[in-house]
Amino acid sequence: LQTKLPKVGTTIFTVMSQLAMEHDAVNLGQGFPDFNVPERLIDALDRAMREGRNQYAPMTGVPALRQAIAAKTERCYGHRPDADTEVTVVSGASEAIFDAVAAVVRAGEEVIVLDPCYDSYEPAIDLAGGRAVHVPLDPQTFAPDWQAIRAAVTPKTRLLMINSPHNPSGAMFTADDIEQLTALLRDTNLWLLSDEVYEHIVFDGRRHESVLRHPELRERAFVVSSFGKTYHCTGWKVGYCIAPPLLSAELRKVHQYNTFCTFAPAQWAFAEMIEAEPEHYEQLGAFYEAKRDRFREQLLTTRLKPLPVPGGYFQLVDYSDVSDLDDAAFCRWLTVEKGVAAIPLSPFYETPPAGQRLARLCFAKNEATLDKAIERLQRL
Amino acid sequence: LQTKLPKVGTTIFTVMSQLAMEHDAVNLGQGFPDFNVPERLIDALDRAMREGRNQYAPMTGVPALRQAIAAKTERCYGHRPDADTEVTVVSGASEAIFDAVAAVVRAGEEVIVLDPCYDSYEPAIDLAGGRAVHVPLDPQTFAPDWQAIRAAVTPKTRLLMINSPHNPSGAMFTADDIEQLTALLRDTNLWLLSDEVYEHIVFDGRRHESVLRHPELRERAFVVSSFGKTYHCTGWKVGYCIAPPLLSAELRKVHQYNTFCTFAPAQWAFAEMIEAEPEHYEQLGAFYEAKRDRFREQLLTTRLKPLPVPGGYFQLVDYSDVSDLDDAAFCRWLTVEKGVAAIPLSPFYETPPAGQRLARLCFAKNEATLDKAIERLQRL
Ligand SMILES: CSCCC(=O)C(=O)O
Ligand SMILES: CSCCC(=O)C(=O)O
Repeated sequence: LQTKLPKVGTTIFTVMSQLAMEHDAVNLGQGFPDFNVPERLIDALDRAMREGRNQYAPMTGVPALRQAIAAKTERCYGHRPDADTEVTVVSGASEAIFDAVAAVVRAGEEVIVLDPCYDSYEPAIDLAGGRAVHVPLDPQTFAPDWQAIRAAVTPKTRLLMINSPHNPSGAMFTADDIEQLTALLRDTNLWLLSDEVYEHIVFDGRRHESVLRHPELRERAFVVSSFGKTYHCTGWKVGYCIAPPLLSAELRKVHQYNTFCTFAPAQWAFAEMIEAEPEHYEQLGAFYEAKRDRFREQLLTTRLKPLPVPGGYFQLVDYSDVSDLDDAAFCRWLTVEKGVAAIPLSPFYETPPAGQRLARLCFAKNEATLDKAIERLQRL
Repeated sequence: LQTKLPKVGTTIFTVMSQLAMEHDAVNLGQGFPDFNVPERLIDALDRAMREGRNQYAPMTGVPALRQAIAAKTERCYGHRPDADTEVTVVSGASEAIFDAVAAVVRAGEEVIVLDPCYDSYEPAIDLAGGRAVHVPLDPQTFAPDWQAIRAAVTPKTRLLMINSPHNPSGAMFTADDIEQLTALLRDTNLWLLSDEVYEHIVFDGRRHESVLRHPELRERAFVVSSFGKTYHCTGWKVGYCIAPPLLSAELRKVHQYNTFCTFAPAQWAFAEMIEAEPEHYEQLGAFYEAKRDRFREQLLTTRLKPLPVPGGYFQLVDYSDVSDLDDAAFCRWLTVEKGVAAIPLSPFYETPPAGQRLARLCFAKNEATLDKAIERLQRL
């Protein structure tokens, strides 16, 4: 049996979570909160089950949820997608990405990804028979290099994948990035896949430049998000994709024969939750900003140097004052010997920048968890 | 935008469910129960959520659930798969089928499917760049024609897909089929994908010839099942795949980057449920057999002729005494004009047998629902 995915091993998130468990380390590796989902959401899901909403949901998603997503999109970004033809509920942002790539990428075609990037992008491209073309982001600021991206476009390029707020760095597209992106797409013929799962976790008054705000972008884009980060339920795997009817139709063809539909009671619960508390989204930035600020301040008492965090769940730290190990070795050592699990950046790259000494710490945790981690990090 | 799936439209199940809704028809089309899941399962899921089991489950599934599946497999089929390396929990049997095909089928390879077959098989094969080779089952008994299957094998054939109890016919593999299948695999070099989602819904004392009972088969098979049919929760989308370590490893590579993991609280709930009520499986056949018997008896008061139903959710009926319409037209007419939604068989075929006059009715329904349908069918 010759593998179709020779580059794929166990994902770094699983590897580090297992190592954390084995060594009783504080797990700041894999990105998930250690606090619970809003009780209202649990109550709503429980009610949905008891009311018998346990059979197949419509393939495209429960209509009330698609409507709620459309309304929420309008509130947030001033544009209301059509719930029937442009919004599709799927089993997590991962499935949305997988389906979108499978829907439009053909054998021999190229997809531009910006390194460091989430580790599911390339296997999805490979399985579609395509080839990922890696263009590095700036190694300090993680800003896109639009000239390099433009230079990477060939007649075979079919799709460009972007991610803002960015995992692992937290970097965010600026208004200028949007202009450059728009110009690039105008001159070429690419589809766009915009991974926006951290859309509501943005700090310091920044504005999330959702592709959905920009007509010239959204008309050729799959915009992917998820409730996992927004409602502290990464294990529920309810995500969605907003795309123009033509792209949605193709995505749905794949989704229909991949998972067909998504855990039905949760769809009813989210529909109710979004309607009941539309302001939940608005509080989320402040909620995580307080965590980030507190954690950064504590990090200043350690020998790790925190990088700026414009958005998202993650604090990058420069560990070059502590160790000369490469990032994979450092994160193992930190987990096994020092009791704090972190994620190295190199697995997010095709070619990691030489000498980069960065590790990713997730601050989507209770204060007690972060305090315990800091106590251990102070001993470095 | 040129579609990658030119043959794919909206699945017949969705089409007929929508039509049923629009015309207030009794929906015996799409296969799902209209009674609720066991309360114990809802309670367990509710508890899992409140205990905070809402973050990513392990990619391969919650260990307690994989253990429960392994133990249940041993109880049912006398073989215990290894929970760590051979059992993978995924988002429904659909995802298992999709992942398995994506994992082993390459561009230009062939996959043998037995018509009529479930409509997700071919799109999964197409997206992997493969080609479905359709071999018809017997048009009366829906038994496999092993000579025809053998004749369809070429050097390019990679995989054979089977399904027992069979959707749409309810036909089941016999001990002789298993012998023939074993001989065929011995002489060739195929992988096997066995779709066994109706494994516990078998009638009249028949034995389900799970591939898992047979060492020579299971050593090269993906065996796919799901909790949707077994626990009356088709909308929960928790399925699993049992396969030898090498095949499981390849399937997991796809799953890891497709949905990554499955709705976590349900995994905990199923683990608890299986342990608490291992005998649930054993009652299921009798539960549905009573429904089948009652429904068949009622059908004898109509002009539809019921075919034998060895297992599963579905009653095929021959409507040739009622109408000369082809099956698609007949099922539309039955839904729109007569108020009972049924599923035609032609969408399950590459080439439907000429003049076949069969429709599929789902009897996984409350007595009141079936009574109402019968009342309407008596007016034909
Ligand atoms: C699916 S496990 C990875 C979770 C995540 O988004 C991350 O840690 O980056
Ligand atoms: C996913 S909708 C189809 C359900 C089903 O298995 C059937 O009706 O055959």
